[in-house]
Amino acid sequence: MPCEFTARRRVEFSETDMAGIVHYSNFFRYMETVEHGFYRSLGFSVAHDRHDPPVGFPRVHASCDYSRPLRFEDEFEMHLRVIEKKVKSLTHQIIFSKITPAGAVEVARGKLIVVCVTTKSDGSMGAVPIPADIASRIEVTTPLPSPA
Amino acid sequence: MPCEFTARRRVEFSETDMAGIVHYSNFFRYMETVEHGFYRSLGFSVAHDRHDPPVGFPRVHASCDYSRPLRFEDEFEMHLRVIEKKVKSLTHQIIFSKITPAGAVEVARGKLIVVCVTTKSDGSMGAVPIPADIASRIEVTTPLPSPA
Amino acid sequence: MPCEFTARRRVEFSETDMAGIVHYSNFFRYMETVEHGFYRSLGFSVAHDRHDPPVGFPRVHASCDYSRPLRFEDEFEMHLRVIEKKVKSLTHQIIFSKITPAGAVEVARGKLIVVCVTTKSDGSMGAVPIPADIASRIEVTTPLPSPA
Amino acid sequence: MPCEFTARRRVEFSETDMAGIVHYSNFFRYMETVEHGFYRSLGFSVAHDRHDPPVGFPRVHASCDYSRPLRFEDEFEMHLRVIEKKVKSLTHQIIFSKITPAGAVEVARGKLIVVCVTTKSDGSMGAVPIPADIASRIEVTTPLPSPA
Repeated sequence: MPCEFTARRRVEFSETDMAGIVHYSNFFRYMETVEHGFYRSLGFSVAHDRHDPPVGFPRVHASCDYSRPLRFEDEFEMHLRVIEKKVKSLTHQIIFSKITPAGAVEVARGKLIVVCVTTKSDGSMGAVPIPADIASRIEVTTPLPSPA
Repeated sequence: MPCEFTARRRVEFSETDMAGIVHYSNFFRYMETVEHGFYRSLGFSVAHDRHDPPVGFPRVHASCDYSRPLRFEDEFEMHLRVIEKKVKSLTHQIIFSKITPAGAVEVARGKLIVVCVTTKSDGSMGAVPIPADIASRIEVTTPLPSPA
Repeated sequence: MPCEFTARRRVEFSETDMAGIVHYSNFFRYMETVEHGFYRSLGFSVAHDRHDPPVGFPRVHASCDYSRPLRFEDEFEMHLRVIEKKVKSLTHQIIFSKITPAGAVEVARGKLIVVCVTTKSDGSMGAVPIPADIASRIEVTTPLPSPA
Repeated sequence: MPCEFTARRRVEFSETDMAGIVHYSNFFRYMETVEHGFYRSLGFSVAHDRHDPPVGFPRVHASCDYSRPLRFEDEFEMHLRVIEKKVKSLTHQIIFSKITPAGAVEVARGKLIVVCVTTKSDGSMGAVPIPADIASRIEVTTPLPSPA
């Protein structure tokens, strides 16, 4: 089952800051882009969910380790692996690599822990098991070890 | 009735771009900040509206003329005037001025045209008259003429 | 000479707001994306400019008229036309159209007026003529008339 | 010496997403706001640094744990503690608390690890010891233990 997903993107001017590099907060926006692309590859969309009641995947944890900067017009790849699957949560690892003439060079490494939730009848949110049709399509992969 | 409203803000690092100045799109985020502060000063919030059905003010037009840059940590003032009031729409003028030791220096001038809408029973949005309790509190001011 | 340029994009979750639609300020970020793509199509990059001294194209005016909302995961097209060329400035018109099964539907229409500048020896910015190798590649197109 | 710093802010509309809450990436922008306020409280600005050569504090790690959502117009407090000081790096803990009539309620907890860098003569960035006049003003505080 597809448990890895890759998306490619080019740095936009508005994503840079006065230090001339991509603002660190934008890596978290990028992570979500590849996460949602991954869900779409499973036939699931957080916007058009057909489960009853609909489910969502808010994050309870997000982190990123930065090793090299990205700059305006750099092309980069985001590679998502599901590295942990529990009844109600998933852990995604996202590797960011800059595309260079010499090949892909890792620039950052992110992690998202998301919980499956639904809106309860009283309007509050509560964690629920990941629907079987989604969960059954997700196989856990080994996290990529840190570069030496 | 209060038809002018002023808010003050300091430029944040994440609002700059690689040219070292505030990214031009952020002036539109700033305009909204002063617009919502203005609504709050009238006792109205787009988030907690007590009209039945609730109304909102999406924009049909937004523009900005830029005369000087804003930089990280600059303090600036946003001054909103309602320069036109129709049955279903408002036009706001927003003057941005940088606070300097020598006084306020205009850096940009924005305009927002917003339409009062509500969600109809079929889920679509439709323009409606601005509720009387809001409209009655808004008096139009003369737009500030352009600097010579 | 190529004076029209089209880019396609999908709405990302972080670009929506609590009204469930793309935040109006993001159309200005999108405009810049297609503008920079256009410059690249001319062999020019604001980041890697080989003119001496390097030139940039800050905006003195930006505006947008909104006719329909864009929502999460919508695919849309941005079509840029250069509708005015002066010695030191360009005016771009950008038409945003949502891609639907029934074809492209216009949702917004933007305008950017940009001025060619360079950094002077005293560190300040000054307007300069658009370099001939760029200007010669740009032919003005007729602006698209407003939809009836 | 001042090693804790607090800033207060109100959620802006453009910071929400279609789930009706503050987009998770914005907590990283907020963290930076309180971080820069903290530096200013020490008499230091990343924009107007008087060290020769100037230093900056890019992040090598950023993380956030989310326990409750923030919504439009919520007022919240960000409390920064320096929880680790090394020769070339600092670790900041930032507690986010929503201001409610019943008091402050923790909603998220962030961490930033920043490294002191300067631009070397060849244009590359390199880690350097935190300048003594900054380092001497920073005393480490105990991290706040996690809520039970």
